[in-house]
Amino acid sequence: FPSRLPNVGTTIFTVMSALAAQHKAVNLGQGFPDFACDPQLLDAVNNAMRAGHNQYPPMAGVQVLRDAMSEKYQTLYGRKYDANTEITVTAGATQAILTAVLACVQPGDEAIVLEPCYDSYVPNIETAGGKVVRVPLTPGTFRPDFDKIAAAITPRTRLLIINSPHNPSATIWTDAEMRKLEELLAPTDIILISDEVYEHMVFDGAAHQSAARFPGLAARAFIVSSFGKTYHVTGWKIGTVAAPAALTAEFRKVHQFNVFTVNTPMQYGIADYMQDPAPYLQLPAFYQTKRDLFRAGLKDSRFKLLPSQGSYFQCVDISGISDLSEADFCQWLTREIGVAAIPLSAFYVEKFDQRVVRFCFAKKDETLRDAIERLRRL
Amino acid sequence: FPSRLPNVGTTIFTVMSALAAQHKAVNLGQGFPDFACDPQLLDAVNNAMRAGHNQYPPMAGVQVLRDAMSEKYQTLYGRKYDANTEITVTAGATQAILTAVLACVQPGDEAIVLEPCYDSYVPNIETAGGKVVRVPLTPGTFRPDFDKIAAAITPRTRLLIINSPHNPSATIWTDAEMRKLEELLAPTDIILISDEVYEHMVFDGAAHQSAARFPGLAARAFIVSSFGKTYHVTGWKIGTVAAPAALTAEFRKVHQFNVFTVNTPMQYGIADYMQDPAPYLQLPAFYQTKRDLFRAGLKDSRFKLLPSQGSYFQCVDISGISDLSEADFCQWLTREIGVAAIPLSAFYVEKFDQRVVRFCFAKKDETLRDAIERLRRL
Ligand SMILES: CSCCC(=O)C(=O)O
Ligand SMILES: CSCCC(=O)C(=O)O
Repeated sequence: FPSRLPNVGTTIFTVMSALAAQHKAVNLGQGFPDFACDPQLLDAVNNAMRAGHNQYPPMAGVQVLRDAMSEKYQTLYGRKYDANTEITVTAGATQAILTAVLACVQPGDEAIVLEPCYDSYVPNIETAGGKVVRVPLTPGTFRPDFDKIAAAITPRTRLLIINSPHNPSATIWTDAEMRKLEELLAPTDIILISDEVYEHMVFDGAAHQSAARFPGLAARAFIVSSFGKTYHVTGWKIGTVAAPAALTAEFRKVHQFNVFTVNTPMQYGIADYMQDPAPYLQLPAFYQTKRDLFRAGLKDSRFKLLPSQGSYFQCVDISGISDLSEADFCQWLTREIGVAAIPLSAFYVEKFDQRVVRFCFAKKDETLRDAIERLRRL
Repeated sequence: FPSRLPNVGTTIFTVMSALAAQHKAVNLGQGFPDFACDPQLLDAVNNAMRAGHNQYPPMAGVQVLRDAMSEKYQTLYGRKYDANTEITVTAGATQAILTAVLACVQPGDEAIVLEPCYDSYVPNIETAGGKVVRVPLTPGTFRPDFDKIAAAITPRTRLLIINSPHNPSATIWTDAEMRKLEELLAPTDIILISDEVYEHMVFDGAAHQSAARFPGLAARAFIVSSFGKTYHVTGWKIGTVAAPAALTAEFRKVHQFNVFTVNTPMQYGIADYMQDPAPYLQLPAFYQTKRDLFRAGLKDSRFKLLPSQGSYFQCVDISGISDLSEADFCQWLTREIGVAAIPLSAFYVEKFDQRVVRFCFAKKDETLRDAIERLRRL
């Protein structure tokens, strides 16, 4: 039978993690921490299991977790989301994004992505039967180009997906850029998906400009958050979507017949652990230290460091080092130098002429030091 | 914007569980156990978390769990599924079924469901853009009617969904019926989804006729299994899909951009716990005792008991009791008698003239006794 996703292969993250394991390389490819999460979080989940929280939770997620997220959004970003009608717990951010796309994009609708972008967005839109409209971020700086976005909007545009802090480029959107987007979208009825899974990894004193802060955006936005990223447990696959009630209602229609609901004891455990905001308030400093360690290590190397304003990632320009394509370079680097990275070409459909690869610094300091030592041999 | 699923409301299970809670009724509606799972299973998950299994697992699921399922299918049903290319771990059976439907049904394709059926099948097909073709099970007996199924098949038929043990009717397909289906499908290229989440709840010495036992079916089937049902943890939302490599490849294309992957420590914990087959081998006797307790309690009541050959469920005919519609009767029963049930009309799109409601007996004996006492007041 014909494939729904004929162009889809194995994700680059799986490919590079497998290659890293095969060559015993330091894996700075796929974005996940190699350090342990807080044991108190594990205690909280274990307590929830022992307390008998092992049967179906409510479809939208357990009340205490939706309440905790509602409070968090109000405190951090100044928007009150109703826990009952505007917040839904999901099986991770990827499921949240597919479900939001399915809820609002129908065959014939156009959906805009800003390239480079996370590798699930395009297949998600294709799964929904929508037409993908690719708008490049500004080459070199990866900043949004509002003229290009404006030019891509048509009467059929149903959806725009944005992502800040940005994977893979590690840029973050400024207040001015978010306002510009708010203005641009004001005369339209375009829905926004704002992928904010790295919201707590912002550096150098910058503030995360959540779409929740901008009323004209929040009123049309699905805002996606990830406990896996926030609490160093990427394998738990729990996130949330915050969206106005009308959007949430359509989201839940798809959600209840996709996963129906999400792991109960994990939800209770996270809700319990969220009572203390310290763990996420410390994240910017925690990850900035790692970024700085990694950047300092590569300072006098042949890699040209691009800015890293937020996220797990440090991008580097390899044009001074090799003539290989980005993808081939990453394979070679894994095999010969023993460090896995992700080629930025994996986040574009049209190949660009940039020579950039992405390292993940969400790793133990000793892992980063080991990687630095290997990379400096170049 | 237009709704992708305009006909979808809140699932009947959510509605009736909420009503039961509001009226402090005994909840025999939504299908979930009210007793604790084996604490050793919780130990296994806790151990996995403490061992650091908290980051992304492989996309298809952790190796040990796929291996354990492969072995289980071979032992129980005599078919060897390759753990690497033919078994995928899912975020529960519902996600497995949507993902399989998305993988094989495209706009314009027809998909056959046998009504009554679980309430996610129809919206799943609609989400994929397929045309739902409803074939009734034989009224009264709920057995498959092969003439009607044959008559519904057209050159556009891409998919058939079957479910045994059957929710809601509690019938199980016989070996002869499975063979008949095998024959019927032999000249076609129709894909089969076999929803077998109640595979271990079969009574009176019957054997579960998994599609895996029938080569002509297994070669075209996505076989869906649920750890939530098997291990009394419906809130964990972990299941598997077994399917030939070509089908699995298409399944994983959709899966990797739906949930990407599934909770890591739960996967390791379940794999560890599965080393002992005793827990699932005991299930038929365990649930048969509950079924028998419930049936004995209603024997001389005004409810007419239908056969219960498998699953969590006991259906009863209410025609001697009330002229209310099934749905109104369930509301009334919850409010006035204090026992929640599910009307079979919730599993049909076209309302039938049957007068049947469904009770779930996957409950503590004391819960069942409490319910019986209330129901006998009628
Ligand atoms: C879902 S695996 C990919 C993890 C990730 O977000 C990344 O490396 O970009
Ligand atoms: C996913 S909630 C419904 C549980 C169930 O399978 C049923 O009650 O039929």
